[in-house]
Amino acid sequence: MEKNVLVLIPLKEEQKRILEEKAPSANFTYAKSQTVDAGQVQNANIIIGNPPVHMLKASKKLKWLQLNSAGVGEYAEEGVLPEGAVLTNATGAYGPAISEYMLGVLLELFKKLHIYRDNQAEANWSYEGKVKAIFDSTALIVGAGDIGGEFAKRLKGLGAYTIGVKRTEGHKPDYLDELYLMDKLEALLPRADIVALSLPETPLTKGIINESTLKLMKKDAVLINVGRGSAVDTEALCDALEKGQLLGAALDVTEPEPLPKEHRLWKIKNAVITPHVSGGYSLEETRRRIAGIAAGNLEAFIRGTKLINVVDCSKGY
Amino acid sequence: MEKNVLVLIPLKEEQKRILEEKAPSANFTYAKSQTVDAGQVQNANIIIGNPPVHMLKASKKLKWLQLNSAGVGEYAEEGVLPEGAVLTNATGAYGPAISEYMLGVLLELFKKLHIYRDNQAEANWSYEGKVKAIFDSTALIVGAGDIGGEFAKRLKGLGAYTIGVKRTEGHKPDYLDELYLMDKLEALLPRADIVALSLPETPLTKGIINESTLKLMKKDAVLINVGRGSAVDTEALCDALEKGQLLGAALDVTEPEPLPKEHRLWKIKNAVITPHVSGGYSLEETRRRIAGIAAGNLEAFIRGTKLINVVDCSKGY
Repeated sequence: MEKNVLVLIPLKEEQKRILEEKAPSANFTYAKSQTVDAGQVQNANIIIGNPPVHMLKASKKLKWLQLNSAGVGEYAEEGVLPEGAVLTNATGAYGPAISEYMLGVLLELFKKLHIYRDNQAEANWSYEGKVKAIFDSTALIVGAGDIGGEFAKRLKGLGAYTIGVKRTEGHKPDYLDELYLMDKLEALLPRADIVALSLPETPLTKGIINESTLKLMKKDAVLINVGRGSAVDTEALCDALEKGQLLGAALDVTEPEPLPKEHRLWKIKNAVITPHVSGGYSLEETRRRIAGIAAGNLEAFIRGTKLINVVDCSKGY
Repeated sequence: MEKNVLVLIPLKEEQKRILEEKAPSANFTYAKSQTVDAGQVQNANIIIGNPPVHMLKASKKLKWLQLNSAGVGEYAEEGVLPEGAVLTNATGAYGPAISEYMLGVLLELFKKLHIYRDNQAEANWSYEGKVKAIFDSTALIVGAGDIGGEFAKRLKGLGAYTIGVKRTEGHKPDYLDELYLMDKLEALLPRADIVALSLPETPLTKGIINESTLKLMKKDAVLINVGRGSAVDTEALCDALEKGQLLGAALDVTEPEPLPKEHRLWKIKNAVITPHVSGGYSLEETRRRIAGIAAGNLEAFIRGTKLINVVDCSKGY
């Protein structure tokens, strides 16, 4: 069996060395997702990282694709990977980075730090009134997987009551006070001070926060989205924020994305927008974890043992 | 013994009722600190709240002053209270409010949320580079009392290594990995990613963060001050931030305070300024806790048992 490994993650030298030790007889090629050429992709038996999707259609030799993302998007669609190829993702790598980001934007909205920052630009020393606390609040974690779970753990430690909503049945971990399936979302929204979305893009998650579900939220609740922009109907959210139907929203992902310069969301005071930066390699720990998942899976693949983070392409995660 | 109780805290009706039940034979007067008249202050045997300091000089009848603040400032100075009068403060009331504020501004700086907020004002979708994490960072808590302690607990729960510095010898709580006296400050500063000041104003704490101690901080460390503005030499901090000697600073207290409109600190990008709002009654829970401390102490005072939060006026806290 040929073992051409194409690595599209910007690894450090030591991380490359560790990876190569897991498959001593393999040939390693390092390239960038943005500039990799079609020939390199076609020649690979194993790809570590996210290649351009259109290049995969001709990749007859591909046996295994290890993504550097938690979301799988088009990679899981029928006909993208050759028959029998395994797809694994990087679930577990982004928890620390994204959950701390979520805590940051939550406190920014709860403590009005976004308003104080605006005031600072005008050298304005003014009190902006009451704040909310995580302590004693109720959080609804929609998509309680790796990222949502890490966020829930942190909230629980800070004194919040945590309710998780998942797409599939599962055991309730200790850091969730309650756990439900997605069909209970509408019944749960009115209870939450914090509604956090960390969902992959699937037909079931598109637009789950829309005009009617926004109306179910508390007037002093905040919405956080770190999954995919499509989970939220952006126009409905703009309307709700403008009408004061909720305290605020923090969005690291938007639809459309990037948010066009002229979009009204930019100007809504209680919207906090960041340009899809909560994950990626913004935090060095994330790269370290992705390298670790890839190295562990490479060792397993070579030995013929079980890989972790195998994606069920029929579900899309 | 006459029991004229003057209450200067804006209590809710239920909180007034609870207070009055603790001293059924007392006469209660409710007023505001800002508008109380000298006659009311002079006539009081017990004051709950912070009266104008100059009015106390004529208060011969005062037996006990329960402040609504954690800081005691001028109230502890010689000759302010009549001989034998007891001074108590509101230590314990501000922990949840201020420690969550501290977490908020810390994450604002670590995750560059202040920069992304500035970018938002210009509809600018740009990546601002690497971020830092609380996870695996080292925090130096200068003034590890109620507020510093609550902050340390939260940081520890989020995966930070916590070092406390106190003004007096004491038992090391579990949420501090190390505990030292103030004389070790200079040796500890180079280790910290987070330097948090929650100190009262005393001759010993004035200007402890100055040109020379700022030079000891890591280039990617952040400074947080929620105690008194005088703990930091503002001009030296401005210089250090302008030169990029540290990652950023978050100040809820400044010297001078309020910060004058023309002060250069307003315009320094990596300074985050809020107008002394982390405590006060910004969070309802704080008022509830102050009312609880006052009611408990009133009961003890009437019964002649031990009060909590008694201030040692010779130390100033």
